[in-house]
Amino acid sequence: MADTHDSLTYQDSGVDVHGADQFVDDIQEAVQATHKFADVVKKTAYAGMVRMPKVGDNPLIAATCDGVGTKLLVAQQVGVFKGLGQDLVAMNVNDLLPAGAKPLFFLDYIATGKLEQAQLSEIVTGIAEACAKAECALVGGETAEMPGLYKPGDFDLAGFAVGTVDENRVPVSTDMVEGDIIFGLPSSGVHSNGLSLARKALFDHGGFRHDTVPEGWDKSLGLELLTPTELYVKPVLSLLEKVEIRGAAHITGGGLLGRVDKLIPPHLGATLKPNKLPPPRIFNAIQVAGNIRAEEMASTFNMGIGFVAIVSLETAATVRNEFTNWTEIGQVTSKTNGVDVGYGKRNRP
Amino acid sequence: MADTHDSLTYQDSGVDVHGADQFVDDIQEAVQATHKFADVVKKTAYAGMVRMPKVGDNPLIAATCDGVGTKLLVAQQVGVFKGLGQDLVAMNVNDLLPAGAKPLFFLDYIATGKLEQAQLSEIVTGIAEACAKAECALVGGETAEMPGLYKPGDFDLAGFAVGTVDENRVPVSTDMVEGDIIFGLPSSGVHSNGLSLARKALFDHGGFRHDTVPEGWDKSLGLELLTPTELYVKPVLSLLEKVEIRGAAHITGGGLLGRVDKLIPPHLGATLKPNKLPPPRIFNAIQVAGNIRAEEMASTFNMGIGFVAIVSLETAATVRNEFTNWTEIGQVTSKTNGVDVGYGKRNRP
Repeated sequence: MADTHDSLTYQDSGVDVHGADQFVDDIQEAVQATHKFADVVKKTAYAGMVRMPKVGDNPLIAATCDGVGTKLLVAQQVGVFKGLGQDLVAMNVNDLLPAGAKPLFFLDYIATGKLEQAQLSEIVTGIAEACAKAECALVGGETAEMPGLYKPGDFDLAGFAVGTVDENRVPVSTDMVEGDIIFGLPSSGVHSNGLSLARKALFDHGGFRHDTVPEGWDKSLGLELLTPTELYVKPVLSLLEKVEIRGAAHITGGGLLGRVDKLIPPHLGATLKPNKLPPPRIFNAIQVAGNIRAEEMASTFNMGIGFVAIVSLETAATVRNEFTNWTEIGQVTSKTNGVDVGYGKRNRP
Repeated sequence: MADTHDSLTYQDSGVDVHGADQFVDDIQEAVQATHKFADVVKKTAYAGMVRMPKVGDNPLIAATCDGVGTKLLVAQQVGVFKGLGQDLVAMNVNDLLPAGAKPLFFLDYIATGKLEQAQLSEIVTGIAEACAKAECALVGGETAEMPGLYKPGDFDLAGFAVGTVDENRVPVSTDMVEGDIIFGLPSSGVHSNGLSLARKALFDHGGFRHDTVPEGWDKSLGLELLTPTELYVKPVLSLLEKVEIRGAAHITGGGLLGRVDKLIPPHLGATLKPNKLPPPRIFNAIQVAGNIRAEEMASTFNMGIGFVAIVSLETAATVRNEFTNWTEIGQVTSKTNGVDVGYGKRNRP
């Protein structure tokens, strides 16, 4: 394209304009497959557009923004990227659910030093497949090549999810009373949270490598850490359709202890029986390798419980009978008990 | 917090949990000030929520996702960060406007190696102030500390804007005919686009430094490059309220030539008179330093025109009389003319 050797073009500056076009072609099919989950309008090239669904008399739009944290550094080490797509979608759509919101659409931001087409196609295909599982449309995204900020092969991921809910259907924790029952959904592992501590414990403190296979395990530590974050959209929306929830939390930053502590109003407490949803083996490996106190573990990691929902004592019977994928894990108590998740406890102010 | 020197905590792993809380406190005021621009509902900690506004019989939700590209590397070199907030908001809300969508809310993602509180407070305050100018609410965001991916002081920014429009008010380019008039709004400089080429031309090829003040200039190249991206929300929405637009484009990736080429249907052409909105001085500095062909410039940069809108010949009279902040810059022509923006031309297929 250049007239002379000395004449600069945009391609010369490190931005691969052609590669970007090819990448867009590669991911089209998986992206299109998500468009049945929203009424997508194709009238403009620069913004994703969907028709606002019917959501009752007082429609609210809910939105979340999150990344996958340093889990992507583990993916880089191991060289496996597809699960990061589900991590990214899950971290965002799961955060819509405590508000009772149904995911409607998703957008992703991928920044990289140099577009590695195969790697990024793997990630975006993973994002699209996870959007399909979460029944929301992938309506757009940005792939930014930033030579100078990211090294070749390095990248970052961020996601944005939008959902809708009728205002009367948003769970309100002011309804919560002593004796309410806490149900949980199992996590698949560390999800996308606390990876900085996990990496430091296992790989620095513990001296393991990502390809170390602990005794009795069938896979390496790196692959175990990369287990994708569970998508809780279907079990939570099914529950919301049938019963009234008084509070719910996606267990991420702050860990099981931090999140349950935030969920319970200050005039109440809560007690969880941790053996009901036992922590996957990765948590013990991290704790031992890093010599980490149980309470620090519970203030960072989900400890095997990825999502909690609180219902009244009367409603609990329905959940026990009809929603067997949910496990009864504890109870709302008086304030004097504090919030005790088994691995650690916080007093109420 | 640690029991023993050997016991790891989340803080040890490089994530400054306390610093993050302090940062959230710092930005609260500027963020709250944006909440009057949407009906923000405060019922949940993990998702931003707003009431769906009334937007006619066929409400659409439009969404965009974008970053500021390597403009942030210039900001790092110069040590001035506040303008990046406006860049981020503008890159996203301006992209809603070609669809006729009014910005409703915004979320931001900031990733960094180590939270530099003053720097990030400056950026997020800039984001909040730009949201106020664009009359949309800043309802959430994520600040991710990722030691191991970003060096201390390094960071990346991504933004996400959601707007609404009635489906009948979305401009459709199929209405466009030969003789339609093209109006433009001036850019403030390179905006957040083509910075990789600009940096390479000025700082590598041209041998200048970011603090070089070219002869006759009142500021350095670095500060000139950092001029924030114009927000086009008000002039575009005012125009949309009064007249019917047959097509509009925010001039970003692909430059003036690429974007106008995409905007004009294949059976038509367009001719712009570039002297009507002359390019700011930075473009000449880049072109000379990099010995860049005019057409490559126009295929990368906005060349002084940040936003274009196309109206019928009859409507043009109204725009000339009542919307004097818009400048008449050209005309839709027959296909045989190609798309000629003055600095370069593309033939039609």
